[in-house]
Amino acid sequence: MEHLDVPQWLATLAVMLGVAKGFGILARRIDQPAVLGELLAGVLVGPSVLGLVEPRAAILQLFAELGVIILLFEIGLETDLAALLKVGGTSAAVALAGVVLPFGLGYAACRLLGLDSVVAIVAGAALTATSVGITARVLADLGRLRDPESRVVLGAAVIDDIVGLVILTVVARLAEGRAVTVAGVATTAAVAFGFLLATLLLGRYLIPPLFRLVDRVDLQGTGTIAALVLAFGLAWLGERSGSALIVGAFAAGLLLAGTTQRHEIERGVVALGHFFVPLFFVAVGAAVDVRVFDPLDPGNRPTLLAGGLLIAAAVSGKFLAGFVPFWFRGRKSVIGVAMIPRGEVGLIFAQMGLASGCLDPGLFGAITLMVMVTTFLAPPLLKHLLGGRPIPKRPGELEEVGDLVTSP
Amino acid sequence: MEHLDVPQWLATLAVMLGVAKGFGILARRIDQPAVLGELLAGVLVGPSVLGLVEPRAAILQLFAELGVIILLFEIGLETDLAALLKVGGTSAAVALAGVVLPFGLGYAACRLLGLDSVVAIVAGAALTATSVGITARVLADLGRLRDPESRVVLGAAVIDDIVGLVILTVVARLAEGRAVTVAGVATTAAVAFGFLLATLLLGRYLIPPLFRLVDRVDLQGTGTIAALVLAFGLAWLGERSGSALIVGAFAAGLLLAGTTQRHEIERGVVALGHFFVPLFFVAVGAAVDVRVFDPLDPGNRPTLLAGGLLIAAAVSGKFLAGFVPFWFRGRKSVIGVAMIPRGEVGLIFAQMGLASGCLDPGLFGAITLMVMVTTFLAPPLLKHLLGGRPIPKRPGELEEVGDLVTSP
Repeated sequence: MEHLDVPQWLATLAVMLGVAKGFGILARRIDQPAVLGELLAGVLVGPSVLGLVEPRAAILQLFAELGVIILLFEIGLETDLAALLKVGGTSAAVALAGVVLPFGLGYAACRLLGLDSVVAIVAGAALTATSVGITARVLADLGRLRDPESRVVLGAAVIDDIVGLVILTVVARLAEGRAVTVAGVATTAAVAFGFLLATLLLGRYLIPPLFRLVDRVDLQGTGTIAALVLAFGLAWLGERSGSALIVGAFAAGLLLAGTTQRHEIERGVVALGHFFVPLFFVAVGAAVDVRVFDPLDPGNRPTLLAGGLLIAAAVSGKFLAGFVPFWFRGRKSVIGVAMIPRGEVGLIFAQMGLASGCLDPGLFGAITLMVMVTTFLAPPLLKHLLGGRPIPKRPGELEEVGDLVTSP
Repeated sequence: MEHLDVPQWLATLAVMLGVAKGFGILARRIDQPAVLGELLAGVLVGPSVLGLVEPRAAILQLFAELGVIILLFEIGLETDLAALLKVGGTSAAVALAGVVLPFGLGYAACRLLGLDSVVAIVAGAALTATSVGITARVLADLGRLRDPESRVVLGAAVIDDIVGLVILTVVARLAEGRAVTVAGVATTAAVAFGFLLATLLLGRYLIPPLFRLVDRVDLQGTGTIAALVLAFGLAWLGERSGSALIVGAFAAGLLLAGTTQRHEIERGVVALGHFFVPLFFVAVGAAVDVRVFDPLDPGNRPTLLAGGLLIAAAVSGKFLAGFVPFWFRGRKSVIGVAMIPRGEVGLIFAQMGLASGCLDPGLFGAITLMVMVTTFLAPPLLKHLLGGRPIPKRPGELEEVGDLVTSP
């Protein structure tokens, strides 16, 4: 039997949940989204401060992934597919501009620093993918998930996630020194988008009759468990078929949004989310190494300089992308700011570049710095932009969105 | 970063939840407790049949332990401590007789088979500990958690769990060939019971004011998360201080049963239980090697013979123990049958004996056979004994117990 210190893991989970809740409450006291507190809680318990939580432990990775999958599933369940498709063109414009602009600016910044063109491509690519998890959670915390701007952002973040995967495949080949063909890129892109389309088209026919059967079962929790089996199954299928875990989970939510059990499923999944979702944000926060920020250490200065340029490229690139769909009549600044946070995907690029020897530790540090700063910047900025209205009475999770829908 | 195939784990969890729910529904169709279906689902997906789930994987162990901890916490939350203490003497009599009788009968059976006395002690010890998880879940499935017999059984199973730990410590020393002193055994026992007493006494003063503070927080899910932090923390403390994980989790439930947030906590924890609890029972089922049951394989016959004797000792020992508290005016047969299932602790004894070389693989197989048979026997037997009343309308989880309490 593999050894596992179960009591130790219980203590770790208790600490993570406890600090996440505590800091979430403190963040709300100063009128900030709870997720900001959860991220800071992660920094505090992570290896570079208290050292209570090791975010790279395999088990924690699984809990964190379950958190982001359940979060995206919840978001999908809250999302009206028809309304999402209505802003589809706007979302696509934001997504594409939000990939091209940061990539171009990041590439230029790296060339300015005298770096090689392959290195500049890898670093530029790390600036492209928005962390849909953080963005969606902030919008949910602020009770804004059904604003037109939020729909554009959600659609763009999902497209951007798929585009990010295509770029990842290309960059992985480049970093390994292999050839990249147009046909190869096109196939990767077709498969990644094809999964989402095929799932939604087939699912619209298969899911409603299936869940009408589930509805006839007289056993508590059946709807929620059936929904989780669908979400996990589609997440697995999404990853295995060349798309992404969270795209599958989001698609599962979209498909179940129209079923009669939606509210029962939502109650069960929100309760699971209370447990799993903060573990994701604490794990993201725990991956931050605060020592990189110390400007008194001369060894940090080149990293801080490169990091500063990459941050400027990352923030301005996504912000400007929000203004590209000139025909959209909402607040374009909200869209741009909401696309700013980078997360897991940016770190995956950085890690891949480091492992292949393409990025040196300094540039790796600069990219992680960019991920951290953009992640921590977006929640207070969005709060500031949307601050005209107070945060709803019982926020911190997604249910208030339901309240907004049912109230006139 | 440690490697972990997250998509593969998602697929495994989806399979486990799907079959657990499917077989749970089938079990209910033939009017049996859902837990019986979940155990059978585990056998099906386990290594000896379909091979989809490896129950000894470290991550699965953690999920299964979370399941049993959340289950015992739920049970504690449903339990009235005063009512439990009222039957304390009866519970203690059942627990002690339920340790002494199976141990004596098992020891005699092994000596009859010509085994060494140390071997007979280890095998006898493996017969002593009732699996409180399985027993409690069956009683909950049948909606009988508040019957006087059930209270006696719950109290006895918790005492028996602590006694099992004391025996485990003693047997571990014996199996390693070390000396056992009376003072040593007394200390182990005092620590194991002392933890429960100290927790309940201190907790009665500390927990209510703490949860009144929690109640003032205006953030969804705070009560549930605070309760989980307490449950995981006490489980950890219980194990580390020489008592047991599940004793700590049960104590946390007992302490929160009287708070004003009890119902809010219960709703959240029940939803988490829908996810985690079936994973425990599927993991228990998956540990069953059905090949041991094949009487056509001559190699299985000595194991089947020893297993048969141990099963007779295990079943009759616990059944007779139910009749020891002659003053109790309830149905003693229900108590005896409810104490029959053995689980994790029996398997831990067997594994320890195998690892120390004290048990040969045949006797190890016989003990696992005894664990399986007693586990699968109790749910239908209890259903038969309590079958006069139909299973409540929406069973499968613990909420119906709440309904029983609120209805006249």
